[in-house]
Amino acid sequence: MSSKNPTFSDWEDRATAEAKGKVPEARLTPEKIAIKPLYTADDVSEMAHDELPGFAPFTRGVRATMYTGRPWTIRQYAGFSTAEESNAFYKRNLAAGQKGLSVAFDLATHRGYDSDHPRVPGDVGKAGVAIDTVEDMKILFDGIPLKDMSVSMTMNGAVIPVLAMFIVAGEEQGAQISELSGTIQNDILKEFMVRNTYIYPPEPSMRLIADIIAYTASEMPKFNSISISGYHIQEAGSTLAQELAYTLADGMEYVRAAMRSGLDIDAFAPRLSFFFCIGMNLFMEAAKLRAARRLWSRIMTEFGAKSDKSKMLRTHCQTSGVSLTEQDPYNNIVRTTVEALAATLGGTQSLHTNAFDEAIALPSETSARIARNTQLILQHETGITDVVDPLGGSYYVEALTDQLADEAWRLIEEVEAMGGMTKAVVDGLPKMRIEEAAALRQARVDKAEDVIVGVNRYRLEEQPELDVLEIDNQAVLKSQITRLADVRRSRDETATQNTLAALSDAAASGQGNILGLAVEAARARASLGEISDALETVFTRHKASTRLIKGVYADAYAGDPEYTVLQNRLSAMPAKPHILVAKVGQDGHDRGAKVIATAFADMGFTVDLSDMFETPEEIVEKAIALKVDVVGVSSLAGGHKSLIPEIVDGLRASGRADILVVAGGIIPEQDYEALRDAGIADIYGPGTNVIDAANRIVGLVQGLRRNEP
Amino acid sequence: MSSKNPTFSDWEDRATAEAKGKVPEARLTPEKIAIKPLYTADDVSEMAHDELPGFAPFTRGVRATMYTGRPWTIRQYAGFSTAEESNAFYKRNLAAGQKGLSVAFDLATHRGYDSDHPRVPGDVGKAGVAIDTVEDMKILFDGIPLKDMSVSMTMNGAVIPVLAMFIVAGEEQGAQISELSGTIQNDILKEFMVRNTYIYPPEPSMRLIADIIAYTASEMPKFNSISISGYHIQEAGSTLAQELAYTLADGMEYVRAAMRSGLDIDAFAPRLSFFFCIGMNLFMEAAKLRAARRLWSRIMTEFGAKSDKSKMLRTHCQTSGVSLTEQDPYNNIVRTTVEALAATLGGTQSLHTNAFDEAIALPSETSARIARNTQLILQHETGITDVVDPLGGSYYVEALTDQLADEAWRLIEEVEAMGGMTKAVVDGLPKMRIEEAAALRQARVDKAEDVIVGVNRYRLEEQPELDVLEIDNQAVLKSQITRLADVRRSRDETATQNTLAALSDAAASGQGNILGLAVEAARARASLGEISDALETVFTRHKASTRLIKGVYADAYAGDPEYTVLQNRLSAMPAKPHILVAKVGQDGHDRGAKVIATAFADMGFTVDLSDMFETPEEIVEKAIALKVDVVGVSSLAGGHKSLIPEIVDGLRASGRADILVVAGGIIPEQDYEALRDAGIADIYGPGTNVIDAANRIVGLVQGLRRNEP
Repeated sequence: MSSKNPTFSDWEDRATAEAKGKVPEARLTPEKIAIKPLYTADDVSEMAHDELPGFAPFTRGVRATMYTGRPWTIRQYAGFSTAEESNAFYKRNLAAGQKGLSVAFDLATHRGYDSDHPRVPGDVGKAGVAIDTVEDMKILFDGIPLKDMSVSMTMNGAVIPVLAMFIVAGEEQGAQISELSGTIQNDILKEFMVRNTYIYPPEPSMRLIADIIAYTASEMPKFNSISISGYHIQEAGSTLAQELAYTLADGMEYVRAAMRSGLDIDAFAPRLSFFFCIGMNLFMEAAKLRAARRLWSRIMTEFGAKSDKSKMLRTHCQTSGVSLTEQDPYNNIVRTTVEALAATLGGTQSLHTNAFDEAIALPSETSARIARNTQLILQHETGITDVVDPLGGSYYVEALTDQLADEAWRLIEEVEAMGGMTKAVVDGLPKMRIEEAAALRQARVDKAEDVIVGVNRYRLEEQPELDVLEIDNQAVLKSQITRLADVRRSRDETATQNTLAALSDAAASGQGNILGLAVEAARARASLGEISDALETVFTRHKASTRLIKGVYADAYAGDPEYTVLQNRLSAMPAKPHILVAKVGQDGHDRGAKVIATAFADMGFTVDLSDMFETPEEIVEKAIALKVDVVGVSSLAGGHKSLIPEIVDGLRASGRADILVVAGGIIPEQDYEALRDAGIADIYGPGTNVIDAANRIVGLVQGLRRNEP
Repeated sequence: MSSKNPTFSDWEDRATAEAKGKVPEARLTPEKIAIKPLYTADDVSEMAHDELPGFAPFTRGVRATMYTGRPWTIRQYAGFSTAEESNAFYKRNLAAGQKGLSVAFDLATHRGYDSDHPRVPGDVGKAGVAIDTVEDMKILFDGIPLKDMSVSMTMNGAVIPVLAMFIVAGEEQGAQISELSGTIQNDILKEFMVRNTYIYPPEPSMRLIADIIAYTASEMPKFNSISISGYHIQEAGSTLAQELAYTLADGMEYVRAAMRSGLDIDAFAPRLSFFFCIGMNLFMEAAKLRAARRLWSRIMTEFGAKSDKSKMLRTHCQTSGVSLTEQDPYNNIVRTTVEALAATLGGTQSLHTNAFDEAIALPSETSARIARNTQLILQHETGITDVVDPLGGSYYVEALTDQLADEAWRLIEEVEAMGGMTKAVVDGLPKMRIEEAAALRQARVDKAEDVIVGVNRYRLEEQPELDVLEIDNQAVLKSQITRLADVRRSRDETATQNTLAALSDAAASGQGNILGLAVEAARARASLGEISDALETVFTRHKASTRLIKGVYADAYAGDPEYTVLQNRLSAMPAKPHILVAKVGQDGHDRGAKVIATAFADMGFTVDLSDMFETPEEIVEKAIALKVDVVGVSSLAGGHKSLIPEIVDGLRASGRADILVVAGGIIPEQDYEALRDAGIADIYGPGTNVIDAANRIVGLVQGLRRNEP
């Protein structure tokens, strides 16, 4: 070799020689981004070259000093079943130096049901705190001065009554409304796409958001009126480009709604914040946050924003829940560390790190501590806060930032061409794209093309047992119902009803600010369910269409021998096995159910998919009416021990004990025995291979048919 | 702001405004590298711009395809007390798909002592396998065909007998010597600097290395004759620039020794390999590996190497042991993940990840699995193997690579100016620089300027208890002594003695290849101790001078109120407390002892430092002769339960029960009670603040003096 510098073509030759003649080539990711094996200075765009942190488009960070001035905020989200428990937990954390609160609500609250509603006895106190009236809200913040405390609330469906009750609780503590600070998620569009904790249809839901933005812009200057969330989009199985694009497209729609209601963009845009999920693809996740900032700055500039503060995309991040495994759970500490690094190298403003046992249960004290320590170690021991945007200039990361921005822009344009996200959500296109991505991911995992250590490779023979936190849902339910009855008994009923009627009128007329009126109702001790119902009578309750996408799984498995064997086994059966894939209760996580339904239909099952949010009784009725062989229930929010056995009991009581019930989702192994005793025929925990599950179900159905008279 | 691009000066203004008027400035690291808060394209040198992986100087990696072709090798080092146990362990791992073996030897073997030597009863079977004769070596590899198996051996002091016995074991399995493959550490220079498992003085030690390089170059073409190790340099407390510089300077010295013995550089240089430690400074560690490759390529070119293979720095890495904490040990999973990422982003060829309980004990089965999984998850789930040198081009990492290379070059030139590393080691300069860095680090940790989560901040009230592996040293000792006696009884004694005499002759005359002659001796069943002694009679045994550096700790604490209170307390005492800081047995880890001795002397104690490798009896004698108040024993290799109580017993037997014995180092909390029962007055586990320890010792001495008659 001569002393002159090697060229890229020299490199290609050498790489080809090392690979025994195979020319190095790019690999296409699920994001449709071509990843080359080598990046060089030629891959960095002129634009990237000149960017500086603290200046639009903020690719390198929203602040000039970033973590060198102050590290990201460690913000751990937590919710307990009752207001009392949550209050005690918050006080402990505040005493330990935590700076803000983050509230998780229970499933019934999310969906606008009071705890005494007949549809929700299995959901009260699940996954967060139950709030029925302002009295619950006052207990939640007892001894915590809301005029000084920043409160983050994950609430979308029942955002009107919850925010109203928060305001009244603050007021009755003696705070000025204008002193209240914090964030409410209030991102309804992604609920229609993925998380399903909506109440009303998209159009009226958008009006509520506009009313909230208008109310907070005029009354609550320290309050972030919306947190535009990609988190649940990625958790539902989207690609990173989809998460990025649909989140920004959601944001655009909220900005339009606020502008349509007459607000000046620079008056509210600085109070918009974002929330992203950070999965395992280290550099792509960091690039995603960089691309998000660059695109948002462009979008806001095009919307006419003048202030830099309006163009800054500030974000909270959370490490990915679906990347965690039930198997060999200490591995999750490794995963969460990588994800936390990705989030912070990407320049997040705050971060929640998941606990290593969250694939199975709510975090224990130890697992919660290690999760928090993960962030403390990154802040104090790794040197990553020494330098602003340490990845800046990396040939790979800069190219990836450009590519992700381009691909996301393409998806945003697709949504815009449909008339914006509200229309796209009604049409269902983003949802379909995400479900397709989720099915493809499941197929890659099932085929071990995407390796998950301890799940589809390097699997342990025996799983270590973990102590997991148990929630006594019945005690919570009883105490909520008692307190709710007390409130109803002691209030001025006429006054309450008047405030509710005013709400219905405003919903119908399009006049008045609904949040303002809801504050009146909350003051008059109207319950969360009553406020929600007053709107629902006008707006109606949204019912999602449950369409199945077809062929994705079959295409991914074309020619796979295991898949072919299963298909042959199915086609040899005199009648195809018929399965009702069901969600039960108010748990809105439908990725698992959708993936199973899609895959099973592709394999050759007859598949029906239940509506969301059905009661055990409704599922029993449907199973009998459809004449299915099997009901497969997907449970991800802790309802498996009460709701699934009720389905078995219901089938038995109707004389149809021959219809099998199987369960899948987040079900800890220590619950398997109790579920089997309750008559559940088979259980598929996280990480179950879908082909294995299908084979097991085929075996069960064949056994059943052999035993038929 | 206008639409033109912001300048660096615009950024400075904005950063200053964010920092309330404080102009952003660089921060000096322990490496004397100025880290700026922001790096831009202007910080990337022309050189970095043009580098490509697979081409000299290999900054971006030694291969063109790097991990996109094949990921790094997961190589976990392990040793058990006996050849039988180790053999069983290796066979299990080989059955599970592991590709090579890595052998850890016990302390007695490292130092050239047979198991029946009177100085080592407490050391046999500690930290690895005991090898006395070729019979032990044959058991170690029983059923493992050495002609097909790559074996890595961590051996430096007793490298001649161990390598000879490995060769004979292979031969007696039926392998050709030329078929043997693997690596022997054989890096004696760093032993004089930090790890202390030397036997002979530096000059004759260098002759042994030249003989080994010559022998393997002609007889064992598949064997790596040396692994030049920075690992122990960093573990001893060096800065990363020191680790880098002294390791490369060691390498230069070995190359010179081999060239002096008449070898062509391109004939042996491709078989040199390196071994670095990877600590918590994510980007600096990655930059260190990049700088190491760039510098070695330059060094080898200057030495006249023609082949690219001679210029490639190939390296094994291990995550840092000293970065692990006894406190809240699951935090160590986070640390090891960060370090493993640093190593792989830096482009290591193979990696050992530490288990999370290694700050306390040998790894358990679970902790060893999580350590291995850490690497598997990085390889399979994070996408970091998709792209060669993903950090390449990062303004920060490229600048850091340049800066580290410059600073290391400065240190190399300092060593070269002394006449090379052998002379520098005799002089002691590198050792002193490292000890100074270690003392400064300890002071930063004690003052919580360097935060260690769970140790000097965020400390748990109660530590979770872990199950740790216990070694029964007495059983190992007995079985080794029996087997050694059997070998001595059954060999042809005259033949054995002749081979030993030939070794002594060659040592004295400078003629003949000592490794070749040692192979003869091993064949004749000479023991490890006998072979070692045959050389020692000529070469003598090296005795390190134990000098103390002064003032480092005092300077770091200048003006600190806690430190001042302690100094006042000490100066108020009628006689200064007098402490003998001691190492006992063959454990060579002296960082802790040195740091304590330096700090205590600065504080105002009268401090004596024992020689290395003393027996309990020798320490008792010395303590009595020096009239000390306290003996402080530092134990890091598991000898605390036998050797430290023997010191207490010895003092009591000599009627000096009034001399206190305290212990520090790697001592699991569950052993504290037994040690206290044995009469140890106080115990300082890992992470103890040195000022706290000093205060506790002052209290003990004051109590003692009050009780004096």
